[in-house]
Amino acid sequence: MRAAVVSQYHYPLNGRATSFAVNTSTSRRRSGAFTVRMGLKEDGPSLAIVGVTGAVGQEFLQVLSDRDFPYRNIRMLASKRSAGKKLTFEDKDYVIEELTEDSFNGIDIALFSAGGSISKKFGPIAVDSGSIVVDNSSAFRMDERVPLVIPEVNPDAMAHIKLGSGKGALISNPNCSTIICLMAATPLHHHAKVIRMVVSTYQAASGAGAAAMEELELQTREVLEGKRPTCNIFKQQYAFNLFSHNAPILSNGYNEEEMKMVKETRKIWNDPNVKVTATCIRVPVMRAHAESINLQFEKPLDEDTARDILKRAAGVVIVDDRASNHFPTPLEVSNKDDVAVGRIRQDLSQDGNYGLDIFVCGDQVRKGAALNAVQIAEMLL
Amino acid sequence: MRAAVVSQYHYPLNGRATSFAVNTSTSRRRSGAFTVRMGLKEDGPSLAIVGVTGAVGQEFLQVLSDRDFPYRNIRMLASKRSAGKKLTFEDKDYVIEELTEDSFNGIDIALFSAGGSISKKFGPIAVDSGSIVVDNSSAFRMDERVPLVIPEVNPDAMAHIKLGSGKGALISNPNCSTIICLMAATPLHHHAKVIRMVVSTYQAASGAGAAAMEELELQTREVLEGKRPTCNIFKQQYAFNLFSHNAPILSNGYNEEEMKMVKETRKIWNDPNVKVTATCIRVPVMRAHAESINLQFEKPLDEDTARDILKRAAGVVIVDDRASNHFPTPLEVSNKDDVAVGRIRQDLSQDGNYGLDIFVCGDQVRKGAALNAVQIAEMLL
Repeated sequence: MRAAVVSQYHYPLNGRATSFAVNTSTSRRRSGAFTVRMGLKEDGPSLAIVGVTGAVGQEFLQVLSDRDFPYRNIRMLASKRSAGKKLTFEDKDYVIEELTEDSFNGIDIALFSAGGSISKKFGPIAVDSGSIVVDNSSAFRMDERVPLVIPEVNPDAMAHIKLGSGKGALISNPNCSTIICLMAATPLHHHAKVIRMVVSTYQAASGAGAAAMEELELQTREVLEGKRPTCNIFKQQYAFNLFSHNAPILSNGYNEEEMKMVKETRKIWNDPNVKVTATCIRVPVMRAHAESINLQFEKPLDEDTARDILKRAAGVVIVDDRASNHFPTPLEVSNKDDVAVGRIRQDLSQDGNYGLDIFVCGDQVRKGAALNAVQIAEMLL
Repeated sequence: MRAAVVSQYHYPLNGRATSFAVNTSTSRRRSGAFTVRMGLKEDGPSLAIVGVTGAVGQEFLQVLSDRDFPYRNIRMLASKRSAGKKLTFEDKDYVIEELTEDSFNGIDIALFSAGGSISKKFGPIAVDSGSIVVDNSSAFRMDERVPLVIPEVNPDAMAHIKLGSGKGALISNPNCSTIICLMAATPLHHHAKVIRMVVSTYQAASGAGAAAMEELELQTREVLEGKRPTCNIFKQQYAFNLFSHNAPILSNGYNEEEMKMVKETRKIWNDPNVKVTATCIRVPVMRAHAESINLQFEKPLDEDTARDILKRAAGVVIVDDRASNHFPTPLEVSNKDDVAVGRIRQDLSQDGNYGLDIFVCGDQVRKGAALNAVQIAEMLL
């Protein structure tokens, strides 16, 4: 965990404590002991990072390092534009290579985060080369043959995929909003069965990439100086404003981001009947999403039981201090692994104990993307 | 309307185009003609503004001027601290007076916005003096004897209160979030009867007063400079962050802001059975609230009919352009009278046409407070 590096008061504007050269940090091993980690191991898998220069690509490296992920070697892949640039990772120098059809020879695990069209083109090529692809794009998420996995939620979905079998495979990383929502909702679902879920999101700039985070910062400076804000990534002012998620609107009036939450939840829970509606909104926050979630259960579930269930849930931390009005915030979960849950309360608008309202925050770049993908890769080891 | 003054691109940081001296602007009369207005009229009522130096107090003046509200004279009232200061309004100079027990002699209509304790103490004194009090605080909202009024929604609730009867009276202005929500929900409710409503809010700094807006600006500058943000009004970083509304949490786990929405909706709709749940969140936006509203109806209501109903609704404007992804934003409704509604769509999570999702934005200082109060006063004329 990098928590100590990023204080909530001394806010690093790009939301990153490090970039490229991540070789000096220490991290908490899963055992709890602090060490200088170094994942370079002769018997580790051979890795490729596709889109290594992007916000999530960078976070892949950070998370691999933080978690002491073992690897024999790493191929750093990006577009032609970045090819040839140098990068230091865990005391070793790398040259970024252009992604080509030959990039996956000898690669055991490829972590993709370079957009849907890159995944569509190069994912199958990597699989044909015998690589197991963990894909952060939406390209294959709804493909029935591709598992859509949150390791804490549905690890069994990828149980048939084995490293070292010589057979390539695709595994999809769910959308960030879905991951953060289901990290909190699933433990409750297992106990009382969610039959309907109404979600409103408060989504950070990072979901639209590093350039969007930079634009939010630039716009904020401009607005404070009374200047017209630069609108390259978004078509409207983002600073001191919010707007409906910029994903295209479908014929049913939902945007693609919202439909991801609807469809991915059904697939991950393997429950085609679960009813989900979502309203996805972008707020001027850098790198962590918040979600207001209203849950309707088949079986009764009181709020104390819900709190106990969430207390025991892996990857979830409860921040629910009513007396001091302290609940999850995007800033407090930034650069953290766990999804924070608070405002846990019985829903007044449902009779009996069949409803709960909760408020959830999770780091979009980390658990919403890079961490979840690396956790998937860990399950292959 | 002051729309032309405040461009969405050249954002005035305090969200105000004018302050104190509002005598040079022009406005659209309700007739649609443009004139330089001047509400000073011998046969108009005698007004008092309680809390004239606050964000809402200032907006009272702006709205009175914009709407050409007739008045014989205005008493500008505030705390001892502001007493003696001068203020120019519609070409006339005023001296701010300290609010005392004698402030309401000869006052026909008193607009209060100085907090609950001031209203509790001085509201009844004003009523005893024969004034009709329009109170923006929560002090009397749930008092059965006091009408809680949104003029477009439940004007009949105050039909028994008459100006010039010599009898004082109290009328409460609902909470800003309730007003903005019900402006959109009520026309639909009248058509298909809302039985349950799930609301998540995105609330602006202005709801916590002018000092909170200043703190958000100050914090943002500080964070951009890498400094620790000043936390006087809020106990945590607000810039590039969001948090659960700072209102106290009650024993049921809801905060007071959320319970206002639950209880005030029941009272305004005169429907003790309507089921409402709300999650109220503060976002780093200056002066307009947004709300994601999920509606469940007793009778079917398709989205086209809903759009037609909202198109005809007074005080509501539809901003729902799916093709260009243009929907309501806080910035676009800032300093506007109308509540903007968009993202109107059939709720996928409800069978048949019994559910809708909508996204609503309204100026918190204007329709959420000052405008609604002045509209109440207009109904007395």
